[in-house]
Amino acid sequence: MKKVAIVGASGYSGEELIRILLSHPQAELSAATSRQYAGQTVAQIFPRFAHHPRAKALRFSEPRAELLDKEAQIVFLALPHGVAAEFAVPLLQLGCHVIDLSADFRVKDPSIYKDFYGHDHPAPELLSQAVYGLPEIYRAEIQKASLVASPGCYPTSVLLPTLPLLKAGLIKPAGIIANSLSGVSGAGRKAEPDYLFVECNESVRPYSVPRHRHLSEIEQELSLAASEPVTIQFTPHLVPINRGILTTLYLAPEQHFGDAQAMDNLAKKITACYQTAYGEEPFVRLLEGKALPDTKNVAGTNVIEIAWRLDPRTGRLIVMSAEDNLVKGASGQAVQSMNIICGYPETSGLI
Amino acid sequence: MKKVAIVGASGYSGEELIRILLSHPQAELSAATSRQYAGQTVAQIFPRFAHHPRAKALRFSEPRAELLDKEAQIVFLALPHGVAAEFAVPLLQLGCHVIDLSADFRVKDPSIYKDFYGHDHPAPELLSQAVYGLPEIYRAEIQKASLVASPGCYPTSVLLPTLPLLKAGLIKPAGIIANSLSGVSGAGRKAEPDYLFVECNESVRPYSVPRHRHLSEIEQELSLAASEPVTIQFTPHLVPINRGILTTLYLAPEQHFGDAQAMDNLAKKITACYQTAYGEEPFVRLLEGKALPDTKNVAGTNVIEIAWRLDPRTGRLIVMSAEDNLVKGASGQAVQSMNIICGYPETSGLI
Amino acid sequence: MKKVAIVGASGYSGEELIRILLSHPQAELSAATSRQYAGQTVAQIFPRFAHHPRAKALRFSEPRAELLDKEAQIVFLALPHGVAAEFAVPLLQLGCHVIDLSADFRVKDPSIYKDFYGHDHPAPELLSQAVYGLPEIYRAEIQKASLVASPGCYPTSVLLPTLPLLKAGLIKPAGIIANSLSGVSGAGRKAEPDYLFVECNESVRPYSVPRHRHLSEIEQELSLAASEPVTIQFTPHLVPINRGILTTLYLAPEQHFGDAQAMDNLAKKITACYQTAYGEEPFVRLLEGKALPDTKNVAGTNVIEIAWRLDPRTGRLIVMSAEDNLVKGASGQAVQSMNIICGYPETSGLI
Amino acid sequence: MKKVAIVGASGYSGEELIRILLSHPQAELSAATSRQYAGQTVAQIFPRFAHHPRAKALRFSEPRAELLDKEAQIVFLALPHGVAAEFAVPLLQLGCHVIDLSADFRVKDPSIYKDFYGHDHPAPELLSQAVYGLPEIYRAEIQKASLVASPGCYPTSVLLPTLPLLKAGLIKPAGIIANSLSGVSGAGRKAEPDYLFVECNESVRPYSVPRHRHLSEIEQELSLAASEPVTIQFTPHLVPINRGILTTLYLAPEQHFGDAQAMDNLAKKITACYQTAYGEEPFVRLLEGKALPDTKNVAGTNVIEIAWRLDPRTGRLIVMSAEDNLVKGASGQAVQSMNIICGYPETSGLI
Repeated sequence: MKKVAIVGASGYSGEELIRILLSHPQAELSAATSRQYAGQTVAQIFPRFAHHPRAKALRFSEPRAELLDKEAQIVFLALPHGVAAEFAVPLLQLGCHVIDLSADFRVKDPSIYKDFYGHDHPAPELLSQAVYGLPEIYRAEIQKASLVASPGCYPTSVLLPTLPLLKAGLIKPAGIIANSLSGVSGAGRKAEPDYLFVECNESVRPYSVPRHRHLSEIEQELSLAASEPVTIQFTPHLVPINRGILTTLYLAPEQHFGDAQAMDNLAKKITACYQTAYGEEPFVRLLEGKALPDTKNVAGTNVIEIAWRLDPRTGRLIVMSAEDNLVKGASGQAVQSMNIICGYPETSGLI
Repeated sequence: MKKVAIVGASGYSGEELIRILLSHPQAELSAATSRQYAGQTVAQIFPRFAHHPRAKALRFSEPRAELLDKEAQIVFLALPHGVAAEFAVPLLQLGCHVIDLSADFRVKDPSIYKDFYGHDHPAPELLSQAVYGLPEIYRAEIQKASLVASPGCYPTSVLLPTLPLLKAGLIKPAGIIANSLSGVSGAGRKAEPDYLFVECNESVRPYSVPRHRHLSEIEQELSLAASEPVTIQFTPHLVPINRGILTTLYLAPEQHFGDAQAMDNLAKKITACYQTAYGEEPFVRLLEGKALPDTKNVAGTNVIEIAWRLDPRTGRLIVMSAEDNLVKGASGQAVQSMNIICGYPETSGLI
Repeated sequence: MKKVAIVGASGYSGEELIRILLSHPQAELSAATSRQYAGQTVAQIFPRFAHHPRAKALRFSEPRAELLDKEAQIVFLALPHGVAAEFAVPLLQLGCHVIDLSADFRVKDPSIYKDFYGHDHPAPELLSQAVYGLPEIYRAEIQKASLVASPGCYPTSVLLPTLPLLKAGLIKPAGIIANSLSGVSGAGRKAEPDYLFVECNESVRPYSVPRHRHLSEIEQELSLAASEPVTIQFTPHLVPINRGILTTLYLAPEQHFGDAQAMDNLAKKITACYQTAYGEEPFVRLLEGKALPDTKNVAGTNVIEIAWRLDPRTGRLIVMSAEDNLVKGASGQAVQSMNIICGYPETSGLI
Repeated sequence: MKKVAIVGASGYSGEELIRILLSHPQAELSAATSRQYAGQTVAQIFPRFAHHPRAKALRFSEPRAELLDKEAQIVFLALPHGVAAEFAVPLLQLGCHVIDLSADFRVKDPSIYKDFYGHDHPAPELLSQAVYGLPEIYRAEIQKASLVASPGCYPTSVLLPTLPLLKAGLIKPAGIIANSLSGVSGAGRKAEPDYLFVECNESVRPYSVPRHRHLSEIEQELSLAASEPVTIQFTPHLVPINRGILTTLYLAPEQHFGDAQAMDNLAKKITACYQTAYGEEPFVRLLEGKALPDTKNVAGTNVIEIAWRLDPRTGRLIVMSAEDNLVKGASGQAVQSMNIICGYPETSGLI
């Protein structure tokens, strides 16, 4: 049993971490901080967890790094970017493992961070030791990491379907388009008019066009996979569901497939590529036959669904993915990293 | 006052036609057919219209072409493809104006029709006289038409934003991608498990990838505008709203815009192009400033919202549109054509 | 054409007033105030109205009573309780007709107002001249009123089904229970966590049990109808729809109906009672046969649907109503009052 | 490990049983029948379970009672009423334990069954051995039962809050009113127009007024608790959520509470009554302070939330409950019964 703490446990990612960790067979949730709720029990603030004895016993505490190390060996940071780094520095010094769900340690280049997040990086000296927490790609590195930068929700939905194809040279690094649809929990528990029920219900809308912050980490990882700088088009949209991201990727295969045989050949290569990359992965579901991804099939799980189609009319490869933005896109994936660090079965607490 | 009839008035498009025509100042809804509801009043089947005296008086009748001509000068067909043509033939012979909301007369080439719809065209001899009912593009032709093929919901959302750019030579005809999100009414009032509340709520999913039937009419109209064959990528998705289509278009400008001045020049051209095409159009809303399309802002109206962004990082032009699939994407647009044919103000009954 | 103004036009009731008045054939929306949006056009803040020329021209202004009288003969107040009275006083002195959508002038007894709203009544001297703006009940009084207190959304849904039965002595004044379900727009455009999409979607919950403020006006009007003090049970619930209130009323008939004939007799009396009260009312839809109220059938309209059932097992009368909380429950009903005051057809701008 | 089978596994209750049993530590899902899906794997039909190895291996089979006994010691019947009894008879003869989720064995009196369900009881000889599967009330009986009649979703939401009060004599048996709101999954996976997304979204409506079938089992159990015949008023409503029932109960305390001290006394008795009945129950959450039930806090769990308020104005006791209709209202409760029968911890597989 490892003692784990959550700093910033009152947002949606924090709440989801609580949900997962309360049921995790090898983790004891020893602390959860929240300025707003300090002193109240987890059961009081989140009644849905009140049937867990631990939720009745655990009180939210003030976020103080110096206290956390006594309480936890693993600390999850579910804080806004900028603030997360402030906690990571002392916690690492005190010997904790830190799994950060913010954007603070995802982008290796502090100038790109500044470019996308609008302020100087708060702890550039830590960037070299941070590991990008995509287990299917960086499992070995995560195992040894003391600081994990858990990926963003959109990046996870874009990278998992794309990286194997890029690495295998099956698609061109140029011209990638990612069209994403996100549930409203992706905006966080922010009391802003744009996210009121009446404003989101019966509404579908794009936002942050053409330059969403998640581009910084997406392009970093695509570039690493392609061994050349990659720039992509990424358009997020808000859709009226609580949880889920559906991403549709428009990709250009390196190989033309003008006739049926070429198409068949290419299809076999793509099948083999995904099978090699994810055939044994517990949380990647490669859809078969006529099945297409659907957020309702992954809601509440740490699974990402992936399906693809070749279009002989346009010569493109369409890849589609579905995930729960709060689980595989945030808290579930962070716990997956914890499992790896601690040497637990990777699915522990997640299936 | 013109007498108008609706054949196939029990589906969502038919119901929407009833809604609009009941309030139309120059139309008298003289007949509405429905096999299923024959003998019952419109008010009984659609209680939401019951405060209209006409809805209490009008009974659904059996669909018989030979009777309709006595009752109506304008007949709307809200029938499945294949069936619509069966009614169009006798109605045109009897001298009615026919506005068909099905796909039967949209595609000029019967072999393409067969290719996409899976059966021989039921009345190829009528194709030459049919006018594609996109008023902003074919107003003059609609004015003289006896048979209007009212466009599909997705095509409207793709074509209105794209055609002026193509005609002006501002974008390349190759490589166009249209990513569309549709409300569930787009599937019709079909009692199939896929469209049950529980299966659609909290679900976002692509379908008909990569070859949706609407590609046939979209590509026909794009090719005409580009004066060359155009093939596009089109991916529809189902989202849990009742009404609305949000389309995001990925376009390649003919002109590069590597520096700020080139980008500014191009932006001015695009602004001018849209302004020329739609500046005076009552149902096209060109968004300004930071505004982006949102289906909730067009629901229940005949308006299409259009916004665009140049992305200097990728060199692409992103154009986004929002419409109500049942109004501008179907019944409202059909009534707009009726207004043109009859010489009424084009906004009559629609604002 | 009457000039009309809206004070506090940025909330949901204010927005709905804008929607209705922009299309009203005899009203000219001359001013709309909003502290938050002063200087911006209605079209900028509410893009859904941007196809109305008036919405492009009209700019929100600062709310100043002394200016409004020059601009408008009729002023709608869509303000929080307490604040509304501050505007009503000077506007009435300046000779305007005031239609107040707040609770400030609904309750005749200032001590009951204080009891339910928690502060002294801000203008008790006006209470005697205020008319409770339920047109189906107080049409004659509204006609002569300079100050109309437009009813609350819940009260409208409770009173219209109940008052005729009480007046006719068909039900007992004691023991009335009203169980109401409201869409989220009823909470106003308040940026509070409770009304975020994620907190309301997939959620159904009671609130303000057992003492909601609307009890004060409901019981006042029931008592007047019954000619004796009436105390009722009222339980509001929040349901995940944008618009609509569904109220289920549990009533005790004065007459027992132990056998089929007694039940038939009573049913006839109830039918006759409602027919007499509402048979000619344009906005009350008395459902027949198996039909039951459904909020989707009244959304966007000024109609209230009413159906009822006698239960021979329990001896009770169940009456159910559905209305759009923003239209018949607020802004539509307020415009209905305006039409009466101005001598316009009562349905003007509302059908 | 017990082998368990599900007969009729393609509906929502069956699917939920699959979900729970796939993760149950002491159950092996050995068979799942479905005429419609026979031959296909559980993973193919329900992709959301595809990450469970068992879901990939298990194929739906034809429902044949004579085969099931070889495969399972416990058989869940998730079939329509009438059909369930046909399977129960042979399965019991073959020595299986049967947990029936239909209504077939809930009502002890076959004439009442016929009265509410419209046909003769298909196996009246089994009624005496069937135990009503409400674990909090009939735990001892369930332990020894071979045939469990698992309660309906509405009855569970009504009975658990009411039975302890009735048994303790705290409320009058006469005049009970239950007003219930149900998510759409309660209607089953029926492809009927009424349950299409477009017809349920933005809709709230009562149905089966005043005589819903579930009255038969509710009144049976209330009568047993009160030791006298009890007739109640019950009004179900459909609300646009997937899962959840919210029931608001209007009850008359035996004791008057005109002054503060009497009210305080009564409140203490009610608190004590619920505490005695449910203080140690793992699946009953007695809310405290200002908290009120909310379906989102029980969705996906086997928990029922209960809160209550005394209203000194009316003398009534308002009790509110929230449950997931598919879990505590159906499949979760059925598994709770299985745990009791098998001597497993009652929360096994359910927390």
